[in-house]
Amino acid sequence: MAKQSSNVVTDILKGTSQVFFVENAVTGALFFAAMAYASYVSGVWATTVGASIGVVVATLTARLLDCDGNSVASGLYGFNGVLVGAALPTFITASPQLWAYVIVGAAVSTVITAAFSATLTAKWGIPGSTGPFVLTGWLMVAGAYSFGGLHVTGDGPKLATEYVQGLAPVPAPIELLQIFFRNIGQVYLLGNEISGAIILLGIFIASIPAGIAVVTGSLIAMLVSIGMGADPAIVSQGLYGFSPVLTALAVGVIFLKASPKVALYALLATVTTVFVQGALDVIVAPAGVPSFTAPYVLTMYLFIAPKKLLAPHPHLPVAGHLVGHEHAEANPSTELT
Amino acid sequence: MAKQSSNVVTDILKGTSQVFFVENAVTGALFFAAMAYASYVSGVWATTVGASIGVVVATLTARLLDCDGNSVASGLYGFNGVLVGAALPTFITASPQLWAYVIVGAAVSTVITAAFSATLTAKWGIPGSTGPFVLTGWLMVAGAYSFGGLHVTGDGPKLATEYVQGLAPVPAPIELLQIFFRNIGQVYLLGNEISGAIILLGIFIASIPAGIAVVTGSLIAMLVSIGMGADPAIVSQGLYGFSPVLTALAVGVIFLKASPKVALYALLATVTTVFVQGALDVIVAPAGVPSFTAPYVLTMYLFIAPKKLLAPHPHLPVAGHLVGHEHAEANPSTELT
Amino acid sequence: MAKQSSNVVTDILKGTSQVFFVENAVTGALFFAAMAYASYVSGVWATTVGASIGVVVATLTARLLDCDGNSVASGLYGFNGVLVGAALPTFITASPQLWAYVIVGAAVSTVITAAFSATLTAKWGIPGSTGPFVLTGWLMVAGAYSFGGLHVTGDGPKLATEYVQGLAPVPAPIELLQIFFRNIGQVYLLGNEISGAIILLGIFIASIPAGIAVVTGSLIAMLVSIGMGADPAIVSQGLYGFSPVLTALAVGVIFLKASPKVALYALLATVTTVFVQGALDVIVAPAGVPSFTAPYVLTMYLFIAPKKLLAPHPHLPVAGHLVGHEHAEANPSTELT
Repeated sequence: MAKQSSNVVTDILKGTSQVFFVENAVTGALFFAAMAYASYVSGVWATTVGASIGVVVATLTARLLDCDGNSVASGLYGFNGVLVGAALPTFITASPQLWAYVIVGAAVSTVITAAFSATLTAKWGIPGSTGPFVLTGWLMVAGAYSFGGLHVTGDGPKLATEYVQGLAPVPAPIELLQIFFRNIGQVYLLGNEISGAIILLGIFIASIPAGIAVVTGSLIAMLVSIGMGADPAIVSQGLYGFSPVLTALAVGVIFLKASPKVALYALLATVTTVFVQGALDVIVAPAGVPSFTAPYVLTMYLFIAPKKLLAPHPHLPVAGHLVGHEHAEANPSTELT
Repeated sequence: MAKQSSNVVTDILKGTSQVFFVENAVTGALFFAAMAYASYVSGVWATTVGASIGVVVATLTARLLDCDGNSVASGLYGFNGVLVGAALPTFITASPQLWAYVIVGAAVSTVITAAFSATLTAKWGIPGSTGPFVLTGWLMVAGAYSFGGLHVTGDGPKLATEYVQGLAPVPAPIELLQIFFRNIGQVYLLGNEISGAIILLGIFIASIPAGIAVVTGSLIAMLVSIGMGADPAIVSQGLYGFSPVLTALAVGVIFLKASPKVALYALLATVTTVFVQGALDVIVAPAGVPSFTAPYVLTMYLFIAPKKLLAPHPHLPVAGHLVGHEHAEANPSTELT
Repeated sequence: MAKQSSNVVTDILKGTSQVFFVENAVTGALFFAAMAYASYVSGVWATTVGASIGVVVATLTARLLDCDGNSVASGLYGFNGVLVGAALPTFITASPQLWAYVIVGAAVSTVITAAFSATLTAKWGIPGSTGPFVLTGWLMVAGAYSFGGLHVTGDGPKLATEYVQGLAPVPAPIELLQIFFRNIGQVYLLGNEISGAIILLGIFIASIPAGIAVVTGSLIAMLVSIGMGADPAIVSQGLYGFSPVLTALAVGVIFLKASPKVALYALLATVTTVFVQGALDVIVAPAGVPSFTAPYVLTMYLFIAPKKLLAPHPHLPVAGHLVGHEHAEANPSTELT
């Protein structure tokens, strides 16, 4: 079917693939396969169902609000919704109120995506990326504590008074391999190495450079988190890796023109993301919410904001959100002269 | 007396009415009557006195700083001050230091109002509304813990480790009626149903559509908060309603041009505000501060930022802050093309 | 040596002096002497070593990223790095991981400085000042709890449930004198009165008005913090004074054109900073981080954003970051008409 047609199915699959900045329906289908596999293994299907509802509601809301048609067709209004839909059932027990919550949350993610686009992107040249998911997710999970119809799984708001001290032994090679793939799977909140491998396959199908960046990001995250002595139980689940993976991809391949200097810049950004992961885990703990992809979002915003520094041709707009497309999403006026 | 004259009394009464986006001295006088009635019932006059000091100091500060004369005369530099003045004595015991705090806080609210106006409004087209009050209030109440001359009433910083579980029975009709009016009174921090009724009267005097939006907002807040199983003790005081009331009014009537689609959009925004109320209560608890109108402010900012979506005539500026006036407060350049 | 040459040593000394908005290599050398003296007294040299590494790494990173050459030569990319380098060893025990942390943190402070410059300054006319240090410092110290190779000294994340009540006696004159100088020394995280006196000397060498503002700021901070009943143990270390000192200097001398009204405005800003100090101490405590210069940064941002109010000649750009230079750093388009 022709590109930019408003076929709802391709809108939705592309929305699913855009979590990794990829506009590719096949990749989106593989991402759903990765979620379904993890649900099959765990027996918990609410996450996959939630992700499906999320991307559909977010995309339809964008159509209803007359958001830019090309952007909707490219999936740019769907990827925050799919993450909201996957995340809420991960942290909140299923109930009628949860499903109302998922629907409202997915619709709101589209409004917030439009809000970020009209301000942060249009005025400051910073892509919103998964920022709307992080904001929606934080509000909905924190709010869940206040409502008797919603039950948050896990420990609830706490002050982490006991922190890890000293260095742990390096994990065995087989566990390192699991961590490598889980780092990728956790972008979709999947601590399952097979799911991570399916997702990586989907990325390589869409773009070889994107795949290489993801592989590199996962390796850097392992090296830094283990070298700094992060809690082995958290490292093992892939929870130190998913944000650095996104940073490596976004800063190294998607938003800046490739060069040796950009590669070095992306390396600094990726290492920084591991540190920010450790920081945000501590900072958001009292509110009882997970940090989601906030470590990636915050680091990427800071590293992309001064992007003129590393964009040697100021008259060519920085490449937009899409792999393969040269969308002039960034406002040219953000190129300071 | 002629409009736009710099009569201090009308400046102040309009500043008081602008809490509900209304520029009407009679409405402002009724709002003061509502505060005085609640003080009479409770025997605590510090709140009404504080509100009076707050609006006077904020308005005079705006005159001293040469803020835009028409805006001052319309009360746009007074409504954050009146709220600061009402809020601080609500949460801090009276003392000489409190009154110094109220005066400085009210003056600072004017500076912050000007700061938001020069940035958020002028650059991004988002009205500051009661955001300056929320920021001032958070800083002053949190700061009060640090000063021995100030005593914060209530529990202080805490982690809410015990949250409500399961659904409570629906309140009796008479209590529902009380909640309906308290939802409105709490915009002025008044958990008194008679005060809420006086405020609603003041709004209807100024604008029928504004009154209808307020009524609808209060009803939606009741329905959603009870349906989601919010803590009945909090719902009963009207604390789940005052932010949704403001959202319904702001998104449904004040900042967007009325249409069926805007009504649906305002409905989504109002429901979202109830969820955000639950979220921010949890998020700000460790700092020992109330959420004030932050649930309204955050939701409104996010829903108004992409306002072009719902403003079908891009060459007509979105209506400004005032009911009845077509102030071109929003920057036309925020209308993306 | 000629100004604007890219001599690394003067870049670095000016970067050190720019913490107080001064571009003067002699002043920078005196600031290093103040740090070294405090290290000599305490026997802890990691802070002085860290500061040296921080300013070098931050400045070299700016050169590598092709940041504006004049700004680098003026030290504008070094002062956040020197503070990051001084702060991290103050709160984290020395280890190989700490030094990796200092190097990455200093490099990141340059990226964040560039990010703030491209957004907050270029778009909204607000100078970034030590905001990048605060953000970097918060993330790095909070992150340190998560890593076994890093050990945070002090108490860690907590809810300050016991706050000071009532007023304490006024300190003896000799202690007041110590507090006066410590208020200045703590800008460099030095609770040492001799170090504070050396820093004050360095400021007076560079600019008499800057010195007067710093003296006034320290006196106001003492008066307000003691008058409000702040915890005497904290006041005594100078921890209520360093942010107000910076506010008095920034608002009263650096960013606005001097006038009686600006002096009054700076007074309000300085008093407000003392209150915000009390507030942020409470707000950031659950994350286990110090408030750093955030009270100054937040207050200054809010008071400078509407600067047109107090800049009577809108066609002359507001003076930039430097004492003595009339850099047109502020975007003229931020002068609302």
